[in-house]
Amino acid sequence: MVAADGRPPRPKPIPLRWGVLAFPQYVGLDAYGPLEMLYIVKYLTPNMTIAVIAETLDPVPATTFNDLDRPVTYMKPTHTIYDNVNLDVLLIPGGPGSSIAYNNTNIINYVKNVYPKLKYIISVCTGAQILAKAGVIVGKRATTNKFGWAETTQTGPGVNWVPCARWVTDGNVWTSSGVAAGIDLTHAFIKETFRNETLADRAANILEIEIHKDPSWDPFCEIWNVTAAGTSV
Amino acid sequence: MVAADGRPPRPKPIPLRWGVLAFPQYVGLDAYGPLEMLYIVKYLTPNMTIAVIAETLDPVPATTFNDLDRPVTYMKPTHTIYDNVNLDVLLIPGGPGSSIAYNNTNIINYVKNVYPKLKYIISVCTGAQILAKAGVIVGKRATTNKFGWAETTQTGPGVNWVPCARWVTDGNVWTSSGVAAGIDLTHAFIKETFRNETLADRAANILEIEIHKDPSWDPFCEIWNVTAAGTSV
Repeated sequence: MVAADGRPPRPKPIPLRWGVLAFPQYVGLDAYGPLEMLYIVKYLTPNMTIAVIAETLDPVPATTFNDLDRPVTYMKPTHTIYDNVNLDVLLIPGGPGSSIAYNNTNIINYVKNVYPKLKYIISVCTGAQILAKAGVIVGKRATTNKFGWAETTQTGPGVNWVPCARWVTDGNVWTSSGVAAGIDLTHAFIKETFRNETLADRAANILEIEIHKDPSWDPFCEIWNVTAAGTSV
Repeated sequence: MVAADGRPPRPKPIPLRWGVLAFPQYVGLDAYGPLEMLYIVKYLTPNMTIAVIAETLDPVPATTFNDLDRPVTYMKPTHTIYDNVNLDVLLIPGGPGSSIAYNNTNIINYVKNVYPKLKYIISVCTGAQILAKAGVIVGKRATTNKFGWAETTQTGPGVNWVPCARWVTDGNVWTSSGVAAGIDLTHAFIKETFRNETLADRAANILEIEIHKDPSWDPFCEIWNVTAAGTSV
């Protein structure tokens, strides 16, 4: 493809300014898996930044499923949703907290308002329901957690939910399946948007993670009997 | 096998009282991967507890590799190393912090003193160097991170380092290879000590993690050119 003046188009700039959205009761691994890979990429990429964005600067507790009064892992925000920090990419984790964030007007409005300024937006697991509520994936193809498929997809009417996929891309929106799928999505995202598979592989090899590189790989849609939008066991 | 009185031996009790050792600059995923699986196991297992144990009750920051002044994820300790909390299993993560903990007499003495009271001890990644310093794996077979193999194994003279293994068991000591290998170890540990592969599989399937069930599976020893103790690139 060439531009009107006959020169090849300038490649899209690498997305350097990352944000992770934090809200109480996110599933830790939804955020920590991608973050661990991003820390290595950042170490090898000049000028890359990672912000953690939340309603306030207070530490944000991850879910521990049954010890809600005594969570043990946290993200410490670097900015609030009111700081208007400039980002290229926003990554939204899921977990029990995403259905609470779904009903938090401040968070939904933040996602709605920031999306047009981003180069890309990413959700992991049930984080997709925040994208649905903010209107980001209405009319688009997306995927989400398979264990909680019926519940999550019901919160996103008008979304073309893809039942069997490790991750789905539609335009500048990347959505992954549950929890660990966020790591595979992050690898694929770095490979594509940084145009550098070697860098993505190096991060995975340092972390000793075997990456699934095929977005259609998804044994979990069968394990959880997800064969069509809205069905689950 | 039968006991002297002719009856089959009583199965070993399931290890219900878990502790995770926290020290600054641990690699987040070393701890968070196993923890995420343990939260689900705990949800399905009455009376299981998970403590986070550190020198003080202050939040303990994970490493971010290059933003040491601004870490974004933490563990919040539930007990200190001076509380003498009763544990069945202690899990020790690795990361840049494990070489600092290696020189922290308080932490090494804690591991040395608590080990004889435990049913099991586990290390993930370079956490093995803490076990080596505390004398727990001297004369035993163990493995560790492959990317940092030479550096880590040098800190453990007298250990029978196994270069190619996802994880290694020797008696009641379980040691895993780098970072993500801790998740596979945790699955195998639950399967064996809880005598419940279904439970371990259920946790992995909820987290949409493809588990490596063969402890000899280890492509990373080749990727990082680890072919014998003490060699690495």
